[in-house]
Amino acid sequence: MTSNDIYKKVLQAISEERGLKALHQRYQLKDAIMRMGPAGFAFENYIASILEYYDYRVTGIRSKIHGKCATHEIDLIGSKDDREFLIECKYHSLRGAYVGLKESLYTHARFLDLQPKFSGEVVFCNTKISNHAKKYAKCVGQQIFSWRYPATNSLEKIIEKHNLYPITILNLSQNELGIFSECNLMIAKDLLRYDEAKIARMTGISKKRIKNLQKLVEGIFYPK
Amino acid sequence: MTSNDIYKKVLQAISEERGLKALHQRYQLKDAIMRMGPAGFAFENYIASILEYYDYRVTGIRSKIHGKCATHEIDLIGSKDDREFLIECKYHSLRGAYVGLKESLYTHARFLDLQPKFSGEVVFCNTKISNHAKKYAKCVGQQIFSWRYPATNSLEKIIEKHNLYPITILNLSQNELGIFSECNLMIAKDLLRYDEAKIARMTGISKKRIKNLQKLVEGIFYPK
Repeated sequence: MTSNDIYKKVLQAISEERGLKALHQRYQLKDAIMRMGPAGFAFENYIASILEYYDYRVTGIRSKIHGKCATHEIDLIGSKDDREFLIECKYHSLRGAYVGLKESLYTHARFLDLQPKFSGEVVFCNTKISNHAKKYAKCVGQQIFSWRYPATNSLEKIIEKHNLYPITILNLSQNELGIFSECNLMIAKDLLRYDEAKIARMTGISKKRIKNLQKLVEGIFYPK
Repeated sequence: MTSNDIYKKVLQAISEERGLKALHQRYQLKDAIMRMGPAGFAFENYIASILEYYDYRVTGIRSKIHGKCATHEIDLIGSKDDREFLIECKYHSLRGAYVGLKESLYTHARFLDLQPKFSGEVVFCNTKISNHAKKYAKCVGQQIFSWRYPATNSLEKIIEKHNLYPITILNLSQNELGIFSECNLMIAKDLLRYDEAKIARMTGISKKRIKNLQKLVEGIFYPK
């Protein structure tokens, strides 16, 4: 049985048993995010899209900003209510990787070097985070959204709350993933925002393929 | 021709042509430090020994110190004239690796979290360092000793000035390297500090082998 077959069976199970839906999708979600790798660009674009669902305006992706002592490349700049946030995205494409104290430390040093430009510092990561990093981040006022942490507002909870599953839950080729990422179409249900002709024009992917992907998205999120 | 043969020829050339000595040893030095890897322990022990030649007292190796927001493992603590320095050793066992801005940033964040315990922060590394890191370090007052930088006080200059070449310029086995590292015998010429019987007792290595190593050290540093 190929992984494609398994995937189909999972989708079938999801639509047959509504109660299992959350469990299956969460299982899928970690893998789906891993499929964005190995570079972090797609993950950064994905987090930018999530932030917009949470009423943040993303005013910069991979921007170079001059600080007191260095020029920093900031993954994302998000603003809300006239406050600007420095946002770092830590992406690992291998299971078992951890974000540790060092990442939390250098993000904070970056934030300090850029004072008073930002009113807050935020780290998003797709892996777990070490206890040392959690403790340090809390103490210096750095917000962290990682896998399973914080309990009520972890990355997967943020995604689940508004069904912001990434397009990588679909069976995309690496080439298609690259195209969708460049077009900032990183959230699966965003494929339903436009008709297939418009997305085909945006992406250069055939209308037929887009229509199939849209049906898949409908089957997952709006099953009859 | 094995690398052992090449090594012998280099040694021969060194003793025949005094003018080539510095050049050959510097060429050897980078490789010799690379042979300390892949873990950084031997390099940390080596830097500790170098510091003692520069009249620093090393009061801690891999010590855990509580800061305001986190507990940090500090590679070395060096003190001189009642001032204590936080010392980080960045070791890479592969050529072409760079120490970049992130390492410099997290070392500084560590230093800030441990204020006012240390009066200075120092980074030693066996590789080159990025221009961003140099600029940032200078600006925040972090001292860096790396390969070829700073020009008048780079790691190789520090080593050359007092002939503090590591024992890895000798043809040691991994096992012997581990033993010497544990005994804090990381500097080649320190093998001449004691007679062969004493070093054989300290290390469990045969007197004959120690005597041979001592002859090699004499041949390199005190050629007749």
